[in-house]
Amino acid sequence: MSSTTSPYKLLKLTHPAPYVAHILINRPAKLNAFSYDLWIEFGAVFRAVSKDPEVRVVVLSAAGDRAFTAGLDIKDSSDDDVLTGSQEDGARFAWALRERILLYQDCVSAMEECAKPVICAMHGICFGLAIDIACCADIRLAASTATFSVKEVDIGMAADVGTLARLPKIVGNHSWVNDICLTARDFSVQEAFAQGFISRLVEGNREEVLKEAMALAGVLAEKSPVAVQGTKELLQYGREHTVKEALKYTAVWNSVALQGDDFKKALGARVMRQKPTFEKL
Amino acid sequence: MSSTTSPYKLLKLTHPAPYVAHILINRPAKLNAFSYDLWIEFGAVFRAVSKDPEVRVVVLSAAGDRAFTAGLDIKDSSDDDVLTGSQEDGARFAWALRERILLYQDCVSAMEECAKPVICAMHGICFGLAIDIACCADIRLAASTATFSVKEVDIGMAADVGTLARLPKIVGNHSWVNDICLTARDFSVQEAFAQGFISRLVEGNREEVLKEAMALAGVLAEKSPVAVQGTKELLQYGREHTVKEALKYTAVWNSVALQGDDFKKALGARVMRQKPTFEKL
Amino acid sequence: MSSTTSPYKLLKLTHPAPYVAHILINRPAKLNAFSYDLWIEFGAVFRAVSKDPEVRVVVLSAAGDRAFTAGLDIKDSSDDDVLTGSQEDGARFAWALRERILLYQDCVSAMEECAKPVICAMHGICFGLAIDIACCADIRLAASTATFSVKEVDIGMAADVGTLARLPKIVGNHSWVNDICLTARDFSVQEAFAQGFISRLVEGNREEVLKEAMALAGVLAEKSPVAVQGTKELLQYGREHTVKEALKYTAVWNSVALQGDDFKKALGARVMRQKPTFEKL
Amino acid sequence: MSSTTSPYKLLKLTHPAPYVAHILINRPAKLNAFSYDLWIEFGAVFRAVSKDPEVRVVVLSAAGDRAFTAGLDIKDSSDDDVLTGSQEDGARFAWALRERILLYQDCVSAMEECAKPVICAMHGICFGLAIDIACCADIRLAASTATFSVKEVDIGMAADVGTLARLPKIVGNHSWVNDICLTARDFSVQEAFAQGFISRLVEGNREEVLKEAMALAGVLAEKSPVAVQGTKELLQYGREHTVKEALKYTAVWNSVALQGDDFKKALGARVMRQKPTFEKL
Amino acid sequence: MSSTTSPYKLLKLTHPAPYVAHILINRPAKLNAFSYDLWIEFGAVFRAVSKDPEVRVVVLSAAGDRAFTAGLDIKDSSDDDVLTGSQEDGARFAWALRERILLYQDCVSAMEECAKPVICAMHGICFGLAIDIACCADIRLAASTATFSVKEVDIGMAADVGTLARLPKIVGNHSWVNDICLTARDFSVQEAFAQGFISRLVEGNREEVLKEAMALAGVLAEKSPVAVQGTKELLQYGREHTVKEALKYTAVWNSVALQGDDFKKALGARVMRQKPTFEKL
Amino acid sequence: MSSTTSPYKLLKLTHPAPYVAHILINRPAKLNAFSYDLWIEFGAVFRAVSKDPEVRVVVLSAAGDRAFTAGLDIKDSSDDDVLTGSQEDGARFAWALRERILLYQDCVSAMEECAKPVICAMHGICFGLAIDIACCADIRLAASTATFSVKEVDIGMAADVGTLARLPKIVGNHSWVNDICLTARDFSVQEAFAQGFISRLVEGNREEVLKEAMALAGVLAEKSPVAVQGTKELLQYGREHTVKEALKYTAVWNSVALQGDDFKKALGARVMRQKPTFEKL
Repeated sequence: MSSTTSPYKLLKLTHPAPYVAHILINRPAKLNAFSYDLWIEFGAVFRAVSKDPEVRVVVLSAAGDRAFTAGLDIKDSSDDDVLTGSQEDGARFAWALRERILLYQDCVSAMEECAKPVICAMHGICFGLAIDIACCADIRLAASTATFSVKEVDIGMAADVGTLARLPKIVGNHSWVNDICLTARDFSVQEAFAQGFISRLVEGNREEVLKEAMALAGVLAEKSPVAVQGTKELLQYGREHTVKEALKYTAVWNSVALQGDDFKKALGARVMRQKPTFEKL
Repeated sequence: MSSTTSPYKLLKLTHPAPYVAHILINRPAKLNAFSYDLWIEFGAVFRAVSKDPEVRVVVLSAAGDRAFTAGLDIKDSSDDDVLTGSQEDGARFAWALRERILLYQDCVSAMEECAKPVICAMHGICFGLAIDIACCADIRLAASTATFSVKEVDIGMAADVGTLARLPKIVGNHSWVNDICLTARDFSVQEAFAQGFISRLVEGNREEVLKEAMALAGVLAEKSPVAVQGTKELLQYGREHTVKEALKYTAVWNSVALQGDDFKKALGARVMRQKPTFEKL
Repeated sequence: MSSTTSPYKLLKLTHPAPYVAHILINRPAKLNAFSYDLWIEFGAVFRAVSKDPEVRVVVLSAAGDRAFTAGLDIKDSSDDDVLTGSQEDGARFAWALRERILLYQDCVSAMEECAKPVICAMHGICFGLAIDIACCADIRLAASTATFSVKEVDIGMAADVGTLARLPKIVGNHSWVNDICLTARDFSVQEAFAQGFISRLVEGNREEVLKEAMALAGVLAEKSPVAVQGTKELLQYGREHTVKEALKYTAVWNSVALQGDDFKKALGARVMRQKPTFEKL
Repeated sequence: MSSTTSPYKLLKLTHPAPYVAHILINRPAKLNAFSYDLWIEFGAVFRAVSKDPEVRVVVLSAAGDRAFTAGLDIKDSSDDDVLTGSQEDGARFAWALRERILLYQDCVSAMEECAKPVICAMHGICFGLAIDIACCADIRLAASTATFSVKEVDIGMAADVGTLARLPKIVGNHSWVNDICLTARDFSVQEAFAQGFISRLVEGNREEVLKEAMALAGVLAEKSPVAVQGTKELLQYGREHTVKEALKYTAVWNSVALQGDDFKKALGARVMRQKPTFEKL
Repeated sequence: MSSTTSPYKLLKLTHPAPYVAHILINRPAKLNAFSYDLWIEFGAVFRAVSKDPEVRVVVLSAAGDRAFTAGLDIKDSSDDDVLTGSQEDGARFAWALRERILLYQDCVSAMEECAKPVICAMHGICFGLAIDIACCADIRLAASTATFSVKEVDIGMAADVGTLARLPKIVGNHSWVNDICLTARDFSVQEAFAQGFISRLVEGNREEVLKEAMALAGVLAEKSPVAVQGTKELLQYGREHTVKEALKYTAVWNSVALQGDDFKKALGARVMRQKPTFEKL
Repeated sequence: MSSTTSPYKLLKLTHPAPYVAHILINRPAKLNAFSYDLWIEFGAVFRAVSKDPEVRVVVLSAAGDRAFTAGLDIKDSSDDDVLTGSQEDGARFAWALRERILLYQDCVSAMEECAKPVICAMHGICFGLAIDIACCADIRLAASTATFSVKEVDIGMAADVGTLARLPKIVGNHSWVNDICLTARDFSVQEAFAQGFISRLVEGNREEVLKEAMALAGVLAEKSPVAVQGTKELLQYGREHTVKEALKYTAVWNSVALQGDDFKKALGARVMRQKPTFEKL
């Protein structure tokens, strides 16, 4: 896709390696704060890569040395009729607000619902929305420059685009989860690593963590897409269903996935100690 | 509330700082063991502070240097007709027992259902019921003197007022959770911290951990109660629902919460770099 | 049960201590790989010990110094008509595959559904199916020789007998869970311990970890079986239900369990500072 | 309980037959409209009879020939600060409203949660809240004078104390359920019977339907309370859980209920063709 | 919207009365069979009216005297690479099929998810997809010419765009539901009415049933949109959640809806015996 | 299977038509009452036909003119140590009882879990267990001689092998469901038909209803087994999951089922107006 026709103004989508898509949040002058337009692009790009057979794994990072994202673009929000409530009737104001929140949630959830694994490489300021977004990644990496905060309480609201729905499911220590969400305090990358919010801590800043993310993406890109995408689907399913439900769904899923060539190829390659290559999915 | 009219005999309720309630389990001579009357008071006090607009955050601690609580008051229990089964008919005995267990569960759950965040400051002996109670706190702190045990197996029963229902949801390492629940062994405060059962370990005993809890309470008390209480509600909801369910509930919740003044005040204060104050809720 | 009449060829079932059953996966020459027959025996032995009143706790380990298990027996699988798809019609092939997957899932789930606690003692190679199996244990121990891998992606498939359904529920750090499941990379016993997949790391190899497992089993075997088995049931229930649901079930469960003699015996023994003994269950 | 000390002013609680409680909504001059005080009494009386061992079955009816209830007392509501919104801040107003709705829901749900079966005998005007209440009964009877309406849409709101939550679960024809809830139209007792909202249509007015309800109550009062109350509990559980979940709960429930004397008595009486009598529960 | 710019070729969208949208399936020459393009338009039009503040209620009917719809356009399907499987690899074929089924499901579900009530007016042949679609309506009406069939079994497949997921929830008699789904037999409009699949049977053909649907739509269009749309949302929520869950969601929902002007207007109009008018939503 | 080697003593399994299995409950002298041995055979025969590729549809009926079944064999039960409680310890008695109830539930559930549709043809006395069993059928037919009763309350217990778990899900009128379960009263075949418990009422006795059931079975036996068995699976799934969950499962299910030959054959046969035949499944 040539840059002249790119549908994205505030994001940049590139394909730095075979089967790897790189999505760059690209408003460094604004500390990558999210305006309405950026939300919309964010949802759109993840829906696009989800369907693109040339993509098997996605890396998300952000431009500029200072921030992954500072969160909501407050200036943009204060010009927004829906958020500031130009409407006088309480019920109609709420209706419009709810529609807006649902829209923003959908944009963020598009990342979680992306059929391909998403690796999130974070650095610098990671506030508010940064946590909502990171919670939608499959794998979270951070540079040693990263500082985190579930900032919403400090702007007078409960986080509403995903952090409170997802964090209790992806980090085991709920006392800590409650602490950071209720106090809105900053927490360091070391704390994030120790508590299991991220799984790799990379010395350095955005370049270093992106390099690590790309290496990891390269590993995933070489594997069977049937196996990798099935694994993502089933892990998400397993997180939200009972064991019995998940096993039942898994059996139907694999009754077809195992008919594919990837299973035979991978098995064969293993016996022959060769490296298999797989068709697009 | 003057102490002369306090409805609590075995608890002490004070308000040591603006918007902070302190609930003290106050049977130090009995190692704060829970008699029937203490159970009832425990439920009552949490229901009361939950509705009190003067309270925005609650600290729970226990009196005496030796124990947070040693658990069930065994002597009191052995005088209790319901528990010892004066009734001969098996079904009727069970009916009475079930009613009693449900009553005790309700008393403990009142802590979890308290609309305001609850910080639990533990020290010394923390056995049996101590764990059931701690699992209902939003944030768990412990002094370095604390020793823990899910004691119930050693008195011939499965824990039934909450530990087995809540522990698997608030601590990530289930092999460890199963180990401590099945063996009923003591575990140290260091182990509790490493495994994520508590999120802060405070050097010292009850005074030191209480001081830390109060400092944390002070931080929460200054924040928007709409934001803080909404965050507690949504974190609990997120823990027990799928992501989609939780997002849907969140959108409705915030469609009204964002209409309040706190959101505007906090946003404004941020821009002006001032400290906002919030109305009672 | 004399060995001459043992219904198990690839497993060995012994009773090394009072109320303790030891199940040994016994195909060391094949690195304990699972053939069809081994799957079937695996399900059968856990169903048998689950009902045996002489058994109060189960230890699972594997023979030979090299491996707990290397996973699926690939040679056996490649001779298997169902797995290799002798049938031409896609729907009928899938039907047969689904039946097979459900059968294998049932064999593994029998371990989780065993009414008595199961301790899994791992060493050496723990690949693929080794993780599915370990996820069904109540308590996971590993020797310092252990190396782990969720291998399935590397044979072109998503794991389908339980790892993806259970791992997200028993380990808190989901970024790490996703990493190991998607990359199929090896991870060390230290990593397994740090992330909470196992709860004890034992220096040494199979003998040392088995000794530790046996000691732990001995502790559980002396306790009230009503208390221990009730605790297992309620922890599993708690993992998969809301708090309210789990409390409701718990109250009914204990309304009968507390009528038993174990509760009185254990309570009495505590007061008298004696060691109680309990009847079979 | 003598009438001089009755805690109820707007209700009347009597015991017209052995083990039968009769709750009468007693504001005929106001067409039995629900004021704040009546809501509170309604919740209280069902909590009381639920625990009263002298009660095995409850009949609910209303006084006066004209109405079962015309619904919410609109005058009372318009004097109510919470409902009319004296508070200016949108979030705080909503918070207070939510508390009030939850309170009213609890008062109505107390009827559904009553451990004993509740028979609802309806006549005349049955509007709005009348439907919310009837949905909480186990068995619904109506006189031929009854006219029904899910009135809430016509006062500008969605029904919020139970009709919309329960009606889709207790009546099979959802097209009809949606029709009556969205149009707020009146529907006749014949329509209610044909669609399965009530199970008996009694010619006459309040006296006739009450007589039929009392006869039915008499039948239930003679049966084993262990059997009857267990059946109510399990039917409610069955309505809201999967078959597997419900069977699991049922097995634990009956493992104790079958130990009681009622099972032996009833079985024995059957063989001897005698009429058994049962102890209080 | 002028017809010259209509985005719909196979549907026709009109606004025959204030706040009423009429969607006409308009392929009478093909018995209104669904081609790929018609599926896409069907989803699009329901998403559009759902957001249009000029629309408060939707009527769906079909053109031509012979059929509501005969179902899938079989010719169109047999030219469709995805459905006929041009891809040789079983897993990749299944992946494409699953995407297609999910797409078609989304198009049909858009009708159910429409924020405004949808009335479905059926006549003539109502086969296969006709049932999937009707299940998404809030209210189902049919002319006496209508004949129904869950046809899918007779083309060698299980219905997969909604009938099997929704029918067991909206019709009470499951023995009948299973009968018609397993046998694929025709059933008459009288049978559909007696079993509660439709709630009104209108003598005549498409004109007569459309007239009745329009009259019903007119009734809904005059009511408070806050009340009507809230009622739809809460009825759907109630159908799929436990009573407790639904009450909790309802309380939050109405805590804001009751703040709107509609509640006050409707209440006031009632007292004054006038007809209220409501603002757009 | 020759009768000389039949594993069933109290049942009779025949194959009266191609692909049709007929299971006959065959203890007419005991009014087909269920002894322990009959329970076991009942579970076994349904597990067997579920896997038998020669069977596509199952008919269940009972021998003798007087009864489908009178329920539990009370004499057999009174000789049963587990049910009568030879064990003195309350907890151990309950444990054994629970195991027994779970075993009986599994035997009955085997009918529901049978992969092929089951048609239940009832006549004469249909008491207690008769209802539990009928609830597991896909389609229920009854002769005009049939009389029904949920008898359990009259023997001092709540029904525990399925009626209370399934009846609220398969019949729409819950007021009626509660009435018959709480009163244990007889209800006629006309009432059963009007309320939707059965879907066909056949004039006559066992012969006539069996003939009708066989005709219906013949219709199902000629259809694609992939389509019919998929429809059964998805209808059961739909009954117990939300619409969204059911659609998701359906899409995976059909992504493989549509690859089979049956879809192409049935589609082709339709175009050619011929009768297709299908391979075994």
